[in-house]
Amino acid sequence: MAQVDARVGDLAGNAEQVLRWSRRAVEDGAHLVAFPELALTGYPVEDLALRESFAAASRAELDALPGRLVEAGCGDAVVVVGYLDRDSGVGAGVRNAAAVLHGGRVVARYFKHHLPNYGVFDEFRYFTPGSTLPIVRVHGVEVGVVICEDIWQDGGPVAALGEAGCDLVVCVNASPYERAKDDERGALVARRAAEAGAPMAYVALVGGQDELVFDGDSMVMSGAGELVARAPQFVEHLLVVDLDLPGDATYRDGDIAGFDVRRVPLLPDPVPSYESRPPAPAAEPLSDEAEVWGALVTGLRDYAHKNGFASVVLGLSGGIDSSVVAALAVDALGAAAVHGVSMPSAYSSDHSRSDAAELADRTGLHYTVQPIEAMVDAFVGQLGLTGLAEENVQARCRGVILMGLSNKDGHLVLANGNKSELAVGYSTIYGDAVGGFAPIKDVPKTLVWSLARWRNAEADKRGETPPIPVGSIEKPPSAELRPGQLDSDSLPDYELLDAVLNDYVEGDRGFADLVAAGYPAELIENIVRMVDRAEFKRRQYPPGTKITRKGFGRDRRLPITNAWREHTP
Amino acid sequence: MAQVDARVGDLAGNAEQVLRWSRRAVEDGAHLVAFPELALTGYPVEDLALRESFAAASRAELDALPGRLVEAGCGDAVVVVGYLDRDSGVGAGVRNAAAVLHGGRVVARYFKHHLPNYGVFDEFRYFTPGSTLPIVRVHGVEVGVVICEDIWQDGGPVAALGEAGCDLVVCVNASPYERAKDDERGALVARRAAEAGAPMAYVALVGGQDELVFDGDSMVMSGAGELVARAPQFVEHLLVVDLDLPGDATYRDGDIAGFDVRRVPLLPDPVPSYESRPPAPAAEPLSDEAEVWGALVTGLRDYAHKNGFASVVLGLSGGIDSSVVAALAVDALGAAAVHGVSMPSAYSSDHSRSDAAELADRTGLHYTVQPIEAMVDAFVGQLGLTGLAEENVQARCRGVILMGLSNKDGHLVLANGNKSELAVGYSTIYGDAVGGFAPIKDVPKTLVWSLARWRNAEADKRGETPPIPVGSIEKPPSAELRPGQLDSDSLPDYELLDAVLNDYVEGDRGFADLVAAGYPAELIENIVRMVDRAEFKRRQYPPGTKITRKGFGRDRRLPITNAWREHTP
Repeated sequence: MAQVDARVGDLAGNAEQVLRWSRRAVEDGAHLVAFPELALTGYPVEDLALRESFAAASRAELDALPGRLVEAGCGDAVVVVGYLDRDSGVGAGVRNAAAVLHGGRVVARYFKHHLPNYGVFDEFRYFTPGSTLPIVRVHGVEVGVVICEDIWQDGGPVAALGEAGCDLVVCVNASPYERAKDDERGALVARRAAEAGAPMAYVALVGGQDELVFDGDSMVMSGAGELVARAPQFVEHLLVVDLDLPGDATYRDGDIAGFDVRRVPLLPDPVPSYESRPPAPAAEPLSDEAEVWGALVTGLRDYAHKNGFASVVLGLSGGIDSSVVAALAVDALGAAAVHGVSMPSAYSSDHSRSDAAELADRTGLHYTVQPIEAMVDAFVGQLGLTGLAEENVQARCRGVILMGLSNKDGHLVLANGNKSELAVGYSTIYGDAVGGFAPIKDVPKTLVWSLARWRNAEADKRGETPPIPVGSIEKPPSAELRPGQLDSDSLPDYELLDAVLNDYVEGDRGFADLVAAGYPAELIENIVRMVDRAEFKRRQYPPGTKITRKGFGRDRRLPITNAWREHTP
Repeated sequence: MAQVDARVGDLAGNAEQVLRWSRRAVEDGAHLVAFPELALTGYPVEDLALRESFAAASRAELDALPGRLVEAGCGDAVVVVGYLDRDSGVGAGVRNAAAVLHGGRVVARYFKHHLPNYGVFDEFRYFTPGSTLPIVRVHGVEVGVVICEDIWQDGGPVAALGEAGCDLVVCVNASPYERAKDDERGALVARRAAEAGAPMAYVALVGGQDELVFDGDSMVMSGAGELVARAPQFVEHLLVVDLDLPGDATYRDGDIAGFDVRRVPLLPDPVPSYESRPPAPAAEPLSDEAEVWGALVTGLRDYAHKNGFASVVLGLSGGIDSSVVAALAVDALGAAAVHGVSMPSAYSSDHSRSDAAELADRTGLHYTVQPIEAMVDAFVGQLGLTGLAEENVQARCRGVILMGLSNKDGHLVLANGNKSELAVGYSTIYGDAVGGFAPIKDVPKTLVWSLARWRNAEADKRGETPPIPVGSIEKPPSAELRPGQLDSDSLPDYELLDAVLNDYVEGDRGFADLVAAGYPAELIENIVRMVDRAEFKRRQYPPGTKITRKGFGRDRRLPITNAWREHTP
């Protein structure tokens, strides 16, 4: 199981990767090597799926692969690889496909049957579902192949495989990270393996792609629902597993549960002798904070590197959000690649500068100070701005400075906003919202604090300097855009705010439900109004890593022009 | 046929509107009144469709309507109204529904069968397709109801209505405007009417909703494909048409073409006598420019008004883009609501100020001058910026000024970018890209010029002052961010650029196709690279009215992180 990071659109590079990892696996004695869903194109390719030239290139790379595998000495291995197909199958259409390669040929193709079209997924926009179900016979072992969503829906190809009889199910996946999704996945794979009456090898994509992070979490589950092997999350990993498979069931072909089941004999019985290896220990599950941190580091690192950025720049206010983003950036890219800028104004507290400087000391990132008073005065004086307009000018001058440094030195600008702020619109558009990437945009404020404490504790455990100043964690949050301003002047307590937001944004609960959950009606109306009215800001916010069930972005699609408000019935 | 503007989320207001227009129609002698698709909720409601409280509110408004119609004296009329249903039908699910109301009751419900899931549409995300097909018998006339996409796909309910036999098909629609789509629509309605062997009354939504404009274009087509009546585009309109319908065919019920066809007798035969009126003249089709102008005015006006803005502010550079946006804004909102700001820099030409001032004179909009030198110097001096970084600071200072004025006076900020610039990334993010709405973001540069000439010629025809200075139309385009800069320094001629963009962006053509279309390989690679690399800028660009087959936005969904490039094979 090759848990690899396939790069969207880099067909040649991804094909090279299939060759390289196949060779490693064969050298390690593998008879069968499986790659993730759409491993040849990357995932998700979005509207590239509709472009004929792209589909043709995917087909061409796939068609060349079997010959190249033979040349690479992998001709005897069975290789399962995800790719984008167009018009090669039964009937026309673009397909989310997996090919079985062996002996210099494409010996079978499977087309994804269940196409997810909810949450971040739009697969009905692109793909035609498949209805054939090839089973390949490898050394007397009957192997079925399915793709990702096929195991998340009841019925479908795994049930058909169970009915038809098979000895192993290979499921190739690209499953976006969400908090605690790994627990759900394990239980699901166990259930489907039981349904198939055979072990399931679940091989998954890893790496960041725009707002999505694929955490890997490849595993093998026995037909009895026991975990046989599990790969670590967030890293590329070759998981080689010996399975003693019976190959003695009663099998049948034909129309089974709506699938056209056909068997393809590939390699002669019986299984060749091999030296059995000790089972690899299953990777330890990560704590919630460790998992989220891993996702955020992966998302930021891959967005920067895959888009050609060697360095990042961000504003350092001494507050918790910028401190956590800085610590993430240092973990993702190394301190030498991180440029922090303190941009004090007349309203900045002493601790905002000293905490920012301390963060720089602790992490070793580049630190500079750029006061904003001269710029702010130029705008405020000429335009005669006061109040909110003046506050926003401060935030926007900081945005112009960061963009100027980005233009000058090629840094990626990071926006520091968290999910709670983004939800209620507590940010200045074109001000602190400026950035090419927003690492914690899907992290609720209360979790930002937990992550800071967890990261510092990890450093303590490893005998390293905790990156985040205690002052940044413990002081009351403030935007410091006017004297003595505190977040709590205009927002509810963050514990309460995050609870309501979780129910309203992620849970999509209406007014009556929120009242039933125990929140005061006035609080609900206030928060809901803020969330609804901030939609226009979110549309122009930078992309950032999804970690929750429902991130702002393609997970939650609401009109800007929207007269609907949850209210007292 | 009530061609109305239903407001997304305003269920109470939309229900009032149904009552008001039904009364008008009944007073005008109508036996049947039809409203557009989802007339009760507005369209598209996006993820509001998934919220239980919203679906319940839609059901409740719908259920209250028949009684309210009786009270309003419309109990004898048959009223067809689109609404969002949940769990009332055969099987569970959210439905894009049309209800037939009569005599104080909901007498039939139809659920949209074909769910569009391409282009701007995501209806598989929300809706469960229907499979029943009620036909109501009104004064001896058999009337079938279908919804929008149902007539855009071959097969489906209209074919079933033809087979079952009916005398009139009512098709309720929300069909987003695209250039020349009205021609396509007319031909389509004629074809389906022929398929049904009966006239089709096609009633359509009007008004702007975020990036979409619904142009109306309601019509009645005879079973022989002759246009009987047609409403004007872009305005609310009650189209009352007398149809002499036979009511004498041979009808059958049951399972027809996959639909469960059921007939509902409503009103007794025969048709009551009525005084026949002369047929209304069909609205004259608009010229291409008039139609696009109408769409842009509607999109801007409705975005501003529906989001509570009474005025707009925009930068006036004396160039063609800002002049056209200003003229649109004046047409949409009136000159008193439009605030133009000239923001000259050290590099601004004399004509940039004089043309802007002339535009203000011609249109009567509010005009002020805010030089940017002091602000630019503050940034450039402190940060030591040169070259592109310095150019961008100029654009960003203008953005900060416009946002400051917006914060101060409550204006909606308009961004002036056109589609060609947006395609190749020829704009400064957080600079000229600043705005709540971008009226011409889907208008190619060459069409911007045509619109300017057309609008001036229209003014001449009407004996009014042409709004746009000739100098703005005729001078070579320049961003004026450095001395003597011209667009043609870094971009191909706009005629050529727009031709390639049309083929690449709207046509989704690959490299070989583009070469076959006659463009030089180097030019293609250059343009394609610019388009692909600007994706991150487009993601943060303001919304603006779609007028082409494929606007940037939800029409064209591409990854930012994307290694795929069209290139020489």
